[in-house]
Amino acid sequence: MSIHQEAFSVSTQGNTEVVDLTGRVGEIVRRSGILKGLATVFMPGSTAGITTIEFEPGLIQDIKKAAEKWASKKTKYKHHLTGDDNGRAHVLSALIGASVSIPVEDRRPQLGTWQQVVLLDFDTRPRDRRVIVQVMGE
Amino acid sequence: MSIHQEAFSVSTQGNTEVVDLTGRVGEIVRRSGILKGLATVFMPGSTAGITTIEFEPGLIQDIKKAAEKWASKKTKYKHHLTGDDNGRAHVLSALIGASVSIPVEDRRPQLGTWQQVVLLDFDTRPRDRRVIVQVMGE
Amino acid sequence: MSIHQEAFSVSTQGNTEVVDLTGRVGEIVRRSGILKGLATVFMPGSTAGITTIEFEPGLIQDIKKAAEKWASKKTKYKHHLTGDDNGRAHVLSALIGASVSIPVEDRRPQLGTWQQVVLLDFDTRPRDRRVIVQVMGE
Repeated sequence: MSIHQEAFSVSTQGNTEVVDLTGRVGEIVRRSGILKGLATVFMPGSTAGITTIEFEPGLIQDIKKAAEKWASKKTKYKHHLTGDDNGRAHVLSALIGASVSIPVEDRRPQLGTWQQVVLLDFDTRPRDRRVIVQVMGE
Repeated sequence: MSIHQEAFSVSTQGNTEVVDLTGRVGEIVRRSGILKGLATVFMPGSTAGITTIEFEPGLIQDIKKAAEKWASKKTKYKHHLTGDDNGRAHVLSALIGASVSIPVEDRRPQLGTWQQVVLLDFDTRPRDRRVIVQVMGE
Repeated sequence: MSIHQEAFSVSTQGNTEVVDLTGRVGEIVRRSGILKGLATVFMPGSTAGITTIEFEPGLIQDIKKAAEKWASKKTKYKHHLTGDDNGRAHVLSALIGASVSIPVEDRRPQLGTWQQVVLLDFDTRPRDRRVIVQVMGE
């Protein structure tokens, strides 16, 4: 059993930009040399989320529209009393969650054919995001 | 430390069918021989989700009704421009997430008394789902 | 590779009380002696959730308001036919999820600066919650 951990950076425009991380996660899993185990993708931050979705232009619009329903730009967020303007981003981040864990077999994350690992950046401005990928196994 | 990984199939009718996986997850944990560790239940697909809930007929109806609020059948999904009709299922899958991780002790997942591991199949048609259970520990 | 598992209790008032678990999670990680690995925070129960958020008074109000949108107190829950009154709490728990997994490095959970691990207790009455923290690594 061993652990391999790497981080990489992603530049986003915020505003629910959806970034496909699947390729980079797969490369890190390969590089880890771990054949069988668990890959955890984690975003250290409170205004973005990590989940899985089919990365397809229509769905990117659909998820943006749905996010507006889950927490609207029109809501008055008490968080804005701190001087920030991204209360909605915090609420959506808590809703979606900051990580996914995927079983690894044959040195590959066992994702479905149409299932990609994505970062959803809910912040109100461009951000440089650090994403941590950890692979644990043998 | 060792890893035990198994997959099994579940037939569903889609349409937010809720399937209780707790028994099968528990059997796999027992079979793994692992006393203490982490059990991850993962669904490789983009139109269903894995979570925990009290598996009870009333709540099954309540979660279906709530899911209709989170992403409605009446919404026009851009995903349907691809020819598919299940944009809502993709959005709900991204919302709920594709996995849960449960600590194992004494060879049992440490779930609460009224807490079951469930698959929520949001697709618009019957599906055969593959569920991966991975147990890592000692 | 080794595993360290501890549980602790938290008293809440329910009604979407938000409890910051970050300090206790950090202590358990330190006590584990594990330098590099994965920390999983899990709540064995079906009427609360675990997620990450910036623990700040404004956001605590914002998340309560958002939760009311995700599952309203005014909805008639079929779960109440069992005699219970907390259908909404079950639905919100299934939505938010019962665990988070955080990479550990240098004996510390790799959370963002403004990212805290929190318990959201959705139940309709005061509860004593047991939270399990598991650290796996080397």
